[in-house]
Amino acid sequence: MDTLGNYTDDSLMLHTDLYQINMAKTYWEDGMHERTAVFDLYFRSLPFGNGYAVFAGLERALDYLTNFRFSESDLTYLQNEAGYQEDFIDYLRGLRFTGTVRSMVEGELVFGNEPIMRVEAPLVEAQLIETALLNIVNYQTLIATKASRIKQVVGNEVLMEFGTRRAHELDAAIWGTRAAYLGGFSATSNVRAGKMFGLPIAGTHSHAMIQAYRDEYTAFMKYAETHQDCVFLVDTYDTLKSGVPAAIAVAKEMGDRINFKGIRLDSGDIAYLSKEARKMLDEAGFKDAKIIASNDLDEYTILNLKAQGAVVDIWGIGTKLITAYDQPALGGVYKLVSIEDENGEMIDTIKISSNAEKVTTPGMKRVYRIINRVNNKSEGDYITLEGEDPQAEDHLKMFHPVHTFVTKFVTNFEARDLHQTVIEGGQLQYELPTPDQIKQHLSENLELLWDEYKRSMNPEEYPVDLSQKCWDNKMRNIQEVKQAVKNAQSNNVMR
Amino acid sequence: MDTLGNYTDDSLMLHTDLYQINMAKTYWEDGMHERTAVFDLYFRSLPFGNGYAVFAGLERALDYLTNFRFSESDLTYLQNEAGYQEDFIDYLRGLRFTGTVRSMVEGELVFGNEPIMRVEAPLVEAQLIETALLNIVNYQTLIATKASRIKQVVGNEVLMEFGTRRAHELDAAIWGTRAAYLGGFSATSNVRAGKMFGLPIAGTHSHAMIQAYRDEYTAFMKYAETHQDCVFLVDTYDTLKSGVPAAIAVAKEMGDRINFKGIRLDSGDIAYLSKEARKMLDEAGFKDAKIIASNDLDEYTILNLKAQGAVVDIWGIGTKLITAYDQPALGGVYKLVSIEDENGEMIDTIKISSNAEKVTTPGMKRVYRIINRVNNKSEGDYITLEGEDPQAEDHLKMFHPVHTFVTKFVTNFEARDLHQTVIEGGQLQYELPTPDQIKQHLSENLELLWDEYKRSMNPEEYPVDLSQKCWDNKMRNIQEVKQAVKNAQSNNVMR
Repeated sequence: MDTLGNYTDDSLMLHTDLYQINMAKTYWEDGMHERTAVFDLYFRSLPFGNGYAVFAGLERALDYLTNFRFSESDLTYLQNEAGYQEDFIDYLRGLRFTGTVRSMVEGELVFGNEPIMRVEAPLVEAQLIETALLNIVNYQTLIATKASRIKQVVGNEVLMEFGTRRAHELDAAIWGTRAAYLGGFSATSNVRAGKMFGLPIAGTHSHAMIQAYRDEYTAFMKYAETHQDCVFLVDTYDTLKSGVPAAIAVAKEMGDRINFKGIRLDSGDIAYLSKEARKMLDEAGFKDAKIIASNDLDEYTILNLKAQGAVVDIWGIGTKLITAYDQPALGGVYKLVSIEDENGEMIDTIKISSNAEKVTTPGMKRVYRIINRVNNKSEGDYITLEGEDPQAEDHLKMFHPVHTFVTKFVTNFEARDLHQTVIEGGQLQYELPTPDQIKQHLSENLELLWDEYKRSMNPEEYPVDLSQKCWDNKMRNIQEVKQAVKNAQSNNVMR
Repeated sequence: MDTLGNYTDDSLMLHTDLYQINMAKTYWEDGMHERTAVFDLYFRSLPFGNGYAVFAGLERALDYLTNFRFSESDLTYLQNEAGYQEDFIDYLRGLRFTGTVRSMVEGELVFGNEPIMRVEAPLVEAQLIETALLNIVNYQTLIATKASRIKQVVGNEVLMEFGTRRAHELDAAIWGTRAAYLGGFSATSNVRAGKMFGLPIAGTHSHAMIQAYRDEYTAFMKYAETHQDCVFLVDTYDTLKSGVPAAIAVAKEMGDRINFKGIRLDSGDIAYLSKEARKMLDEAGFKDAKIIASNDLDEYTILNLKAQGAVVDIWGIGTKLITAYDQPALGGVYKLVSIEDENGEMIDTIKISSNAEKVTTPGMKRVYRIINRVNNKSEGDYITLEGEDPQAEDHLKMFHPVHTFVTKFVTNFEARDLHQTVIEGGQLQYELPTPDQIKQHLSENLELLWDEYKRSMNPEEYPVDLSQKCWDNKMRNIQEVKQAVKNAQSNNVMR
């Protein structure tokens, strides 16, 4: 972080909405602050019209939670600039995250309305972390999902992430490219991401180098004299008339002294140019030279280029991936689902809304993936209340949580718990996997899904069902709130 | 920055595309690295169909440039993981930014195809900084522009930035909200941005607090007992039947013990609810209580709500602003326009493209805003070659750079140089203004524009013209490149 402004000991503790701190103050003064609260982090609907999402963001979220501690300058700011009184500041000074987090792991397939993370912590702690957790998980999950979606379209062809210059500031560039890698990309152009996360890095030269040497032949030759691996960018002046011929000339002249890996097309009609360039490369004897295409590509343009017979081996994806251009926000939310009452009992809570799909599902819950042991495909996800054991059922009844008449019974299944306890009592309980391990986990996960859920247009809706107990509990909570609102109304009338 | 991975001394030097480092290697080995190069940073077209953009990003860009120095772990990574040889690493170890940067200041109005920043530096330095500069300027300018666009629609009503949870990772949240403030917002919910930049912060409580206390009356009362300024969120259960009445009841009961600032609506039909809530507040004697609206708002929904007679005093804007939802990328580019040749002469360079609008404008240039002294309105921007003095002209000829027959002559004008020398010989030459000073600068700038350029739909196109010399120079360069490509073709045939 830059050392801008008056505060050099930047921490992430103030990376939260002011209302969280104001609520913390109320809870603390009222003695509510240590009541155990349970929050679910989830999103309601899948982005990009995709059939699934890919969870990412856990690594940074855990780093944030395990470094949960106000810096002295945070406290100075809160006291002197934001006007909080000293005893509250003293309380904040001692605050640590002491809760327990059950979470999906990165690379897990995730669907609408199922808890990705479940936070169980003293109310103040659970509340303060909301904003940063959502900021991290929303973006990284969005990009991992977009990347996986693009990967579905290119199959075995290689994807490279080139979007740093269009990313939303620096963090998005590095965490976005990590998410892209998790989702199926093979390399990034961002060297810092390579360093931080151990990702493969890729890139050779830009148009500026051609301009600096005036002509392509000279520029390619200079590059070839100073690098073993060579990919030449051929579209600075005229792709087929000057760029590709110059690349071929240099490759021939240098022979075994370089590893001529291919050419890059960054403008013009990629379908036409790639086909013509392929012929030229093949005729010159460079059948193994790859064609790399870039220029505002995404899954739609790639599908279209493929339909036109484009001959592209490697796709460089920038803006449309790193900004999630066609849907630049995932609507992840973080909702209170249960809270300890004055007697120490956990009481479920619900948020009613005029939009039926925004009604929360109360209670401390678990999420299982129900995997058919016969075909090793997933039958859907199954949300239970804590303490239920779906694996104990012979015939598991699954029903649609809205259209409840849509039911099926599943036998011979594995109920796979999708959560791991990643933090317990504030302590990290989880060994962070490498990006390649996460990628592998995603790949195994995708095998569980029928192709119908994975197609990029109009995929089938994957079932995310509530157990009967969970559903009954939700309905009971709705009735109770309705009654409470009625009572409040008459109280308000009387006041 | 988190201390993730094996490298704790994170610097931003590797926050660049790998190709920049590969080109640096070629330039260095070839002895080209210290040739003076001039790059322009600009975008081609305005975002959101807006009539102008608002430049932001200079503060962080200057911080980056003045801290330009590879860390030891950067160098270790480049040598051990990326495979660069030791002598090149030694060269990089000593590298500093020694160039000169002329730039617009933050809050400047900027239009397509005019240099926002002009970097004049040894080729290697100028090249390495491209990616990070674009990453910073593209995003911050995009958000400042979006914010200003929303501000045009709300007039004197107040705008608050609430988007952290949907921002693209942490940096976007804080630098984005700063950009929003520069563009016309009045406060942010992000406390860290408040601390870092001295921005006003805002926020009271969320739905979770209502849920934690079960009913609104209790929750509002607890909040009122622990805070002087109170805004109550009234839509957790039923806005008009329970939320607003409970807010009014608490405000009446607490009387002068609190400053009842108003209520917030975060869901439902804002037009209807705001009108009804206004009546209820007025009838209860709270005529000064404000109504704050939030929930996926942007300039379009606000215009629509206003047309429906919504009574909103303060608009809380989240997702649609912080992600620039309707156009989440600004296509800023960074192009070589001039380079020193082997004889120490500066030679202009051009990038030709099959897209005519992507052809660069060669040469070291200046940008002037031509302000009519009679009405104090801008006649347009005027790009010259270095050394021209438009102020010396009695009758300045301005002509459209594409439709050259569109001409006008301007007299009695001020030619205001839009660039300042912010870094000279690597040294900061610029005192950073406060956010409020930048905001003031923008506000004065907007006064120079006729309203026709500021409307949110179909604004007039603001003139950005080239001087005759600049235009002639561009045409000459195009001809030279065409000839050079022809020569290259015949050379390629001969090889």
